[in-house]
Amino acid sequence: MGATYGRNIRMTIFGESHGKGIGLVLDGLPPGTPIDEAFIKEEMARRAPGQNLMSTQRQEKDAFIIESGVFEGRAAGTPVCVLIPNSDQHSKDYSILKNQMRPGHADYAGKIRYQGFNDYRGGGHFSGRLTAPLVFTGAVAKTILAKKGIIVGAHIARIGQVTDSLFNPLGETEACLRELRKQVLPVLEPNKAAMLEAEIMTAREQQDSVGGVIEVMATGMPPGIGDPFFDSLESRLSHALFSVPAVKGVEFGTGFGIAALKGSEANDPMTFAGGTVKTTRNHNGGITGGITNGMPVLFRVAIKPTPSISRPQQTVDLVAGKDTVLEIKGRHDPCIVPRAVPVIEAVTAWVLLDMLLE
Amino acid sequence: MGATYGRNIRMTIFGESHGKGIGLVLDGLPPGTPIDEAFIKEEMARRAPGQNLMSTQRQEKDAFIIESGVFEGRAAGTPVCVLIPNSDQHSKDYSILKNQMRPGHADYAGKIRYQGFNDYRGGGHFSGRLTAPLVFTGAVAKTILAKKGIIVGAHIARIGQVTDSLFNPLGETEACLRELRKQVLPVLEPNKAAMLEAEIMTAREQQDSVGGVIEVMATGMPPGIGDPFFDSLESRLSHALFSVPAVKGVEFGTGFGIAALKGSEANDPMTFAGGTVKTTRNHNGGITGGITNGMPVLFRVAIKPTPSISRPQQTVDLVAGKDTVLEIKGRHDPCIVPRAVPVIEAVTAWVLLDMLLE
Amino acid sequence: MGATYGRNIRMTIFGESHGKGIGLVLDGLPPGTPIDEAFIKEEMARRAPGQNLMSTQRQEKDAFIIESGVFEGRAAGTPVCVLIPNSDQHSKDYSILKNQMRPGHADYAGKIRYQGFNDYRGGGHFSGRLTAPLVFTGAVAKTILAKKGIIVGAHIARIGQVTDSLFNPLGETEACLRELRKQVLPVLEPNKAAMLEAEIMTAREQQDSVGGVIEVMATGMPPGIGDPFFDSLESRLSHALFSVPAVKGVEFGTGFGIAALKGSEANDPMTFAGGTVKTTRNHNGGITGGITNGMPVLFRVAIKPTPSISRPQQTVDLVAGKDTVLEIKGRHDPCIVPRAVPVIEAVTAWVLLDMLLE
Amino acid sequence: MGATYGRNIRMTIFGESHGKGIGLVLDGLPPGTPIDEAFIKEEMARRAPGQNLMSTQRQEKDAFIIESGVFEGRAAGTPVCVLIPNSDQHSKDYSILKNQMRPGHADYAGKIRYQGFNDYRGGGHFSGRLTAPLVFTGAVAKTILAKKGIIVGAHIARIGQVTDSLFNPLGETEACLRELRKQVLPVLEPNKAAMLEAEIMTAREQQDSVGGVIEVMATGMPPGIGDPFFDSLESRLSHALFSVPAVKGVEFGTGFGIAALKGSEANDPMTFAGGTVKTTRNHNGGITGGITNGMPVLFRVAIKPTPSISRPQQTVDLVAGKDTVLEIKGRHDPCIVPRAVPVIEAVTAWVLLDMLLE
Repeated sequence: MGATYGRNIRMTIFGESHGKGIGLVLDGLPPGTPIDEAFIKEEMARRAPGQNLMSTQRQEKDAFIIESGVFEGRAAGTPVCVLIPNSDQHSKDYSILKNQMRPGHADYAGKIRYQGFNDYRGGGHFSGRLTAPLVFTGAVAKTILAKKGIIVGAHIARIGQVTDSLFNPLGETEACLRELRKQVLPVLEPNKAAMLEAEIMTAREQQDSVGGVIEVMATGMPPGIGDPFFDSLESRLSHALFSVPAVKGVEFGTGFGIAALKGSEANDPMTFAGGTVKTTRNHNGGITGGITNGMPVLFRVAIKPTPSISRPQQTVDLVAGKDTVLEIKGRHDPCIVPRAVPVIEAVTAWVLLDMLLE
Repeated sequence: MGATYGRNIRMTIFGESHGKGIGLVLDGLPPGTPIDEAFIKEEMARRAPGQNLMSTQRQEKDAFIIESGVFEGRAAGTPVCVLIPNSDQHSKDYSILKNQMRPGHADYAGKIRYQGFNDYRGGGHFSGRLTAPLVFTGAVAKTILAKKGIIVGAHIARIGQVTDSLFNPLGETEACLRELRKQVLPVLEPNKAAMLEAEIMTAREQQDSVGGVIEVMATGMPPGIGDPFFDSLESRLSHALFSVPAVKGVEFGTGFGIAALKGSEANDPMTFAGGTVKTTRNHNGGITGGITNGMPVLFRVAIKPTPSISRPQQTVDLVAGKDTVLEIKGRHDPCIVPRAVPVIEAVTAWVLLDMLLE
Repeated sequence: MGATYGRNIRMTIFGESHGKGIGLVLDGLPPGTPIDEAFIKEEMARRAPGQNLMSTQRQEKDAFIIESGVFEGRAAGTPVCVLIPNSDQHSKDYSILKNQMRPGHADYAGKIRYQGFNDYRGGGHFSGRLTAPLVFTGAVAKTILAKKGIIVGAHIARIGQVTDSLFNPLGETEACLRELRKQVLPVLEPNKAAMLEAEIMTAREQQDSVGGVIEVMATGMPPGIGDPFFDSLESRLSHALFSVPAVKGVEFGTGFGIAALKGSEANDPMTFAGGTVKTTRNHNGGITGGITNGMPVLFRVAIKPTPSISRPQQTVDLVAGKDTVLEIKGRHDPCIVPRAVPVIEAVTAWVLLDMLLE
Repeated sequence: MGATYGRNIRMTIFGESHGKGIGLVLDGLPPGTPIDEAFIKEEMARRAPGQNLMSTQRQEKDAFIIESGVFEGRAAGTPVCVLIPNSDQHSKDYSILKNQMRPGHADYAGKIRYQGFNDYRGGGHFSGRLTAPLVFTGAVAKTILAKKGIIVGAHIARIGQVTDSLFNPLGETEACLRELRKQVLPVLEPNKAAMLEAEIMTAREQQDSVGGVIEVMATGMPPGIGDPFFDSLESRLSHALFSVPAVKGVEFGTGFGIAALKGSEANDPMTFAGGTVKTTRNHNGGITGGITNGMPVLFRVAIKPTPSISRPQQTVDLVAGKDTVLEIKGRHDPCIVPRAVPVIEAVTAWVLLDMLLE
C-alpha cells in the first residue's frame, strides 16, 4: 500500500522511474476550483531536473496530461487523473542494480519488501521522480489557499556547512514568501545563494552529494484547525513530509532546540493584537494541542544527501552472495535540496488544505 | 476526530482529565494474545504521576479495568475496551481557566476548535493523562514483539543542558534495552541520572519546567517492513509520535545532523555479516525508502517543557477581552520527559506491531 | 477489525453479551450538540429486551453511563464514550456452546475466525445486544437531523405471512413517522399490529421464531448528498445496515421489484413543484447516481428469524468430532423484528448525518 | 470523494464518458502476481458495448494500457495504473443535457452535488463506462482466487418477466461456474437464453429498456473470513456492489424470502461431511455473523432498467425553470443486465480477495 493519503483531498500516486510514466489521482477537489495550468507548469518546472549543473543530467520537462476531472478549466469535483509521461529514460543498462544494492537507497529494503518483483531500474517506484505528482497537487492547493489568504513559503536553511537565517517566527510578509519561489536557491540572506551553490558544486566535483535543511512557513492559517492526538496538524503534516524520499527529520517551531529551554521561555505569551489573539513568541510553530493557534505555522525538514553518487561504494551482491564495490557512472544530483523545496511546499499546501476542509 | 489510529491494531482513545475517566478501545489484537496484567501495570506505573518530586502532585494509580475483549486471560480477537477511572481530580476550582488561556497549552486552540464547548478543567481531553491508554497498548504490543525477537528501548538523551551518550546506532543488547526500563531516569551513562535529576529539581525550585530529548531503538526488526511514500515506517511512526502531547520534533538515524554530511558519509555501506545483509553505519536509522533494512530502527523525539508552571505568565482573558497575568498555584510536573519515556516506547511498539501485521 | 465505522461521525463499538458490559466511542459530534438523555433512554427502551412476551426473557434496562465527551449537557466535541453495563447475565451454564455450534448463529464462523479464543457465552461479541450502542448514536443523530428538518421513520412491512402496507414513496408526514416510534409493533394499517403479534405468538408457542421486513423512510434530505461509486449513499447505508446482526437483504426504492419494470416505468418523471425539483414517482428511493435527489430516501431491510430457538436442532460437536442434536432450553426472542426497528432507524440516522457532514 | 475502496487491494477509479479516458489505480497486489493480459481482455470484452443488438451502439474495445506497477509480466507490488482511452465519443451534441435532466439518471443529483461544474456529456463520471476498470481488477482477482480454489460465477436470474432457475445453494461445480462466463446471456436453463433475448429485443423495439436480477456464487471460500459488524463480509460486499450504477438491491442467501420463514426452517443444520463442517441447507448464503462458514457465498443483485431510453419523457429544464419533454435520439442499451454480469462478478472477486488478505 502507501499510494494514497489525505482525508478530504485524497491523492493516489503511481509510476516508476523507467516505466511508461508516473502520475496521480486527486479526489475531493472542491467543484469549480480553477485549474491554472500555467501556474502548475511553473511550479513543476521548479522541481524538474536537468536545468543546471546542480541537478541530475536527466532531461524531463515533467509535461503533464490531465486525463479526467477537469471540465472547461475547472475541477469538476470528480477524480482528477494526471499523467506525467517518462520522456528521457536513459537507454543505459540498469541490470547491475538488479543484484547490487546501492547504499543509502531503497534498493535492498524494496527488494525484500517486494520479494524481488519490483522494477529496479533507476529506483523504480522509489525514485525521487515520484515527487512530481506532489507538486501538481501542491500547485492546485496553493491556488485555493491563496484565496483564503494563506501563503506557503520555504527557503533553504542549510546545505552542508552553509546556513541561511531562519524565518522570523512571528511571520514573514506575503511578498517575501512569494519572492522565495522565484529563486533557484531560495534564501533570506541574498549573499547566501552563491555560497550554497559553491557548496553544491564542491560536492559535485568530488563526485559526491550533500544534504540540507528546508524551513517552511504558512501564514494566514486561522486558529482552530487540527485535532488532538491522531489527527493533530503535526501528525498529519509529518506523515506526509516523511513520505517524501530523503526526509529524515521534521521539527515544529523551535523543535529540538526547545529541549534546552525552560517552560517560562518556551511558553509563548499571549496578547490581544488588533482585536485578535496572538503570541509574542512562536516557539510552538503556530500549533498547540495539535491545533493551529493563529500564529504562522513553522517547521523545518532535514534532507539527506542524495544517495546516488558516482564514487565507488562498498555494498553487497545478492546473487553472488558476497561483498562488492559498486561504481555507478553518470552525473547525479549533487544536492536534492533545491529541487525538494517546491516538493516540501507542495506537501505542506496539500495537507493544510486537507485539514482546512474538515 | 483524531481519536483513532492504526491499520491493523486500531486504537481509539477517549476521556478528559477531570471527567469520570479515560480509556481506550483496541481492535485487531491477534486472538489468543496473552494479556499480562502484571506487566501492563508495571508499564503503566512508569508513566503514573505522583511518584516522586520530579512529577506532578496528582495521585493517580492509573488502575485499569478491562471491560471487554479479553477472555480467560487472552485477547478474544474482539475489541478490547479498557477504562482508567479518574481517582484524584483535584477538587480545586478551575473556573479561571475557562476564560484565561494558559500559554503553551492547548487552551486557546482547543477553545476555538470546539467553539467553547470543550471541558477546560485540567486541560480536559488535551491532558497528558490521555497518554495512559497508549501505555496499555504499548505493553501488549511489547509482549507480542518480544516473542518475535523485537525489543524496544529508550533513554533520555537530554534534559535542559544535560546530555547522555547516544545509542550505538549499530545496535544495543537486549539486556541494555530492558535494563533502561527499570530506571526512573533511564540513561546510558550511569552518572548522568543524578545530573538530570538536578536539572529537573532546579527547574522545580524556580517554579519552572524544562524540556528534553528521548532516543528510541528497536532491535530485531526484520527487513522489508513498511511501504514507500504514504505508508512509510517514518510516516506512520512520526504520525503517532506527534500525537503525543509536547512532542515538537522527530528525527530518524542521524536526523538533522545528516544535513551536514556528504553522501559518501551518509550512505551506509552494506556487507554480508553472518549470512545476513547489514550496514556498517546506521545514519538512516534502519529505514531506507520508508522500509526497514534489517538494522536497528533508531530515532529521537524532542519534548517541550511542560507548559504548566506556577510562575505568573502574560496571557489573554477572552471574556474580559484584554491581556492579563495568569498565575496557576500548585505543584506541576517540572519535567515531563521521564514519564514520557514509557509513552514514546509504547507508541513505537504499537506502530511497529501495526506495520508488522500488514 | 470491524469495530469502527463512519467518516465524520465515527463510531467504535465493543463488548460481549456476558462480560462486564458493552459500549461505544463516538468521535466527531459537532461541539455543542445537546445530549438529551431522556430522549436517548426513550429510544434505548424501544430496543431493550424483556418488556413483553414477544421478546427474550433477559431483563436489561440498557442503562448507560456517559464516561467522556459530554460537558454541561452538550457534546464537547471530543470522543464520547458510553458504557452499558451487563446487569442480567443469566447465571446458567453456557459450556455446552463451547463445542456445540448453534445453527444459524455466528458460533462456528466466529470460532474459526478467532481460533477458538472468543467468548462464546451467549454469543459473546456477536450478540444482538451489541446493537444497543447503535441506538445511542442514532438517538443523538436523530436530534441533530430533526433540527435540519430531516425525520427518520420505520415500520414493520412484514412478519412471517403478515404484511403491512408500504410507505407512500412520495413521502409520509412527519407526524406519521414520529407516531410510528411510539408503537411496539409499528404499522401503517392499525389493524395489522394484532395480526403481527399473533404471528409472533404462534412462533413462540411452537418454540420457534419468525423473520420479517422493515421499511424505512427519511424525509427532508436535501438533494446532492452522497458521492458516485464507493461513497454512494446506497453503499454507505447498506454497509452499516448489513452490520446489524440478522440483516440478509437491503433494497432501495422499488428494489428487487424494479427488475420486472421497463425503463419508461422505472424512470421517475421530474417536475417543478413549488419551485423545487421533485419526481412524480419514487422507484429510485430518493437516490440516483448514489446521491440524494430531494425525494424521500426509502428502503427495506430483510431480517432473518432469530436463530436462537429452543427446538432441538441438528448440529456438530467440534470436540467430539461428530454430529449431535442441540437443545437450548429457555425463552428466546420469538421475533427480533420489533426490537430491530429502532436499531435500523438508528443506523439510518447515523449514516445520513455522517454523509450530510461531508 | 468516492473514488477509492478496499483495505488490502485498494482501487481508485477515475474518468468521464466523453473525456480523454477512464482508468484505475490498484494498490496492494501481492508482488509477483501474474498479470494475464489475454484473460483480462477476455473479461473486459464481456462488458464492452457494441457487440450485438442488445447493447448500446457505442463502439468501444475497452483497450487498456498498463502505465505502471507491472514488471516483466507480473505485479511489481507497487501501484498499478491502467488507462482505458475513450475511442468512440459520439461527436453528437450533448448540450441539451446541460439543463434538461434525464429521469432516472444521476444528472440532477450530480448537478447539485457538483454545483454544476461536472462534465455532463454522456453522464460524465456517472457513466456506466466507469465499470470497465472494475472488470480489470476483477480479472486479476479471479486469477489469484482460482489458485486458492475459489471460483466466482454468476448468471441472469431474471430479466423483465423471464426468470432462470436459481443456483443450488449447496454449491455448483467449477465447470458450471466457468461455463457461465462464456455465455452472452448466462443462464442455468439453456432454453432461457432465447427467452431473455426476446425480452430484451421487445424492450428495444419499444424504444424502452428492462431490468433484471443477477445471482452470484463463490465456491471454495474457507470459513472464518470476515469480521463482525462493520467489516462483515455482507457489509463490505454490499458496499462495493451498490457502487455499481443501477444496482438497487442486494440479498444474501434466501434474502428477502427469509422474512417468511420460521427459525426452524431458516437455520441451516450443521453436519460433518468428509471431515469438514458443512450445512445441509444454505439460507444464510455462506455467511453467519458476517463471517464465512465454509458454504458457498451466495447472493442476488437487482439491476434497474437502463434509464437511457429514446422515448419522450417528462422532466425539468433547470435554466428555463419549467417542465419539459425530453427526447434523446439514438440507440441505447435496452438492457444493461448482460453486460453487468462480468461487472458484478468482478466486484465480488475483488472484495473476496480483499478480505482474504486480512
